[in-house]
Amino acid sequence: MITRKQKKQAQLKAAAMIRQAGITITDEEAKKIEIADFGLSNLENEGVQVLTLVQTERISIKILVLFPNQTEPEHWHPPVANDPGKEETVRVISGKVYFYIPGEDTFKEGFIVPGKEDCYTMRNEIVMVPADQITLPPGEKHWFQARDQGAVMYSFSTIARDVLDQFTDPDIERMTKVVDDS
Amino acid sequence: MITRKQKKQAQLKAAAMIRQAGITITDEEAKKIEIADFGLSNLENEGVQVLTLVQTERISIKILVLFPNQTEPEHWHPPVANDPGKEETVRVISGKVYFYIPGEDTFKEGFIVPGKEDCYTMRNEIVMVPADQITLPPGEKHWFQARDQGAVMYSFSTIARDVLDQFTDPDIERMTKVVDDS
Repeated sequence: MITRKQKKQAQLKAAAMIRQAGITITDEEAKKIEIADFGLSNLENEGVQVLTLVQTERISIKILVLFPNQTEPEHWHPPVANDPGKEETVRVISGKVYFYIPGEDTFKEGFIVPGKEDCYTMRNEIVMVPADQITLPPGEKHWFQARDQGAVMYSFSTIARDVLDQFTDPDIERMTKVVDDS
Repeated sequence: MITRKQKKQAQLKAAAMIRQAGITITDEEAKKIEIADFGLSNLENEGVQVLTLVQTERISIKILVLFPNQTEPEHWHPPVANDPGKEETVRVISGKVYFYIPGEDTFKEGFIVPGKEDCYTMRNEIVMVPADQITLPPGEKHWFQARDQGAVMYSFSTIARDVLDQFTDPDIERMTKVVDDS
């Protein structure tokens, strides 16, 4: 969970990073930025900030923000009814992104969130800079990470059904609980 | 048709406008920019420049560039086999875009390409600035135009089958012929 104050601060920080990356967004869009802590209550280390620009029954366009040294947990997009599952292209806009997919273990520049070795099993490392992009077929496990600069990315995909995403970490709940400040 | 020299000049101009709009693209991408004159051999007035970032069997992500006072001809995306037709969201990145769709005639700030009144039948005008976006359902006729600043946009859509697009102007051929410089 996060508090309302944490949510608001994270939204402001994410909106500033998006604009710093050269992307124009409206104030209404900035207020809609989703803060995802994946139920881990550890946003600083594991989480992602998401601004959905387009969400129809057929496609989904999002801006993803990773704060410095924040990691988006390992997950995959399963088939849903007649849909083979979400196909997603991530394109880096600013910062450097350490992206992990199936394949040979080439893990070198990233880091595993301390104590969570079992939750980050993909170790084929792709280091991405602005204008680099990767297309993930449905079902492909992946996780990604920013270092000191943080990172801003586009996610271009077929219809997103985030609540149905599957995660390696059994403690994850996709929807973030927001509570009053104590 | 356009000449090889015209094509190269238009690619350089479009790449510069994309980068000026704050979008990072690679040199390889810049060389792939499609110059579409719609077979009208009048690129300066009717045409569009297109950089395809993602093209899969399910989605298509493009950057569209209109040069100053250039107009993209009226067209629509028809159904194809089991596909109801392309659904497209256009989001403005830089410049001002005059967008025309079905509805009440509110034509005011744009202009009709001289002598082509019959080829631009949609007159419901939407003036769009950066961060404005519009989602077009399949089959909806539309055309759009830039004025003195030109414009850069994203097009986020389901699979694009450009050669099957339908145009109001009977003289249009979607694929541009490129000829040697005389």
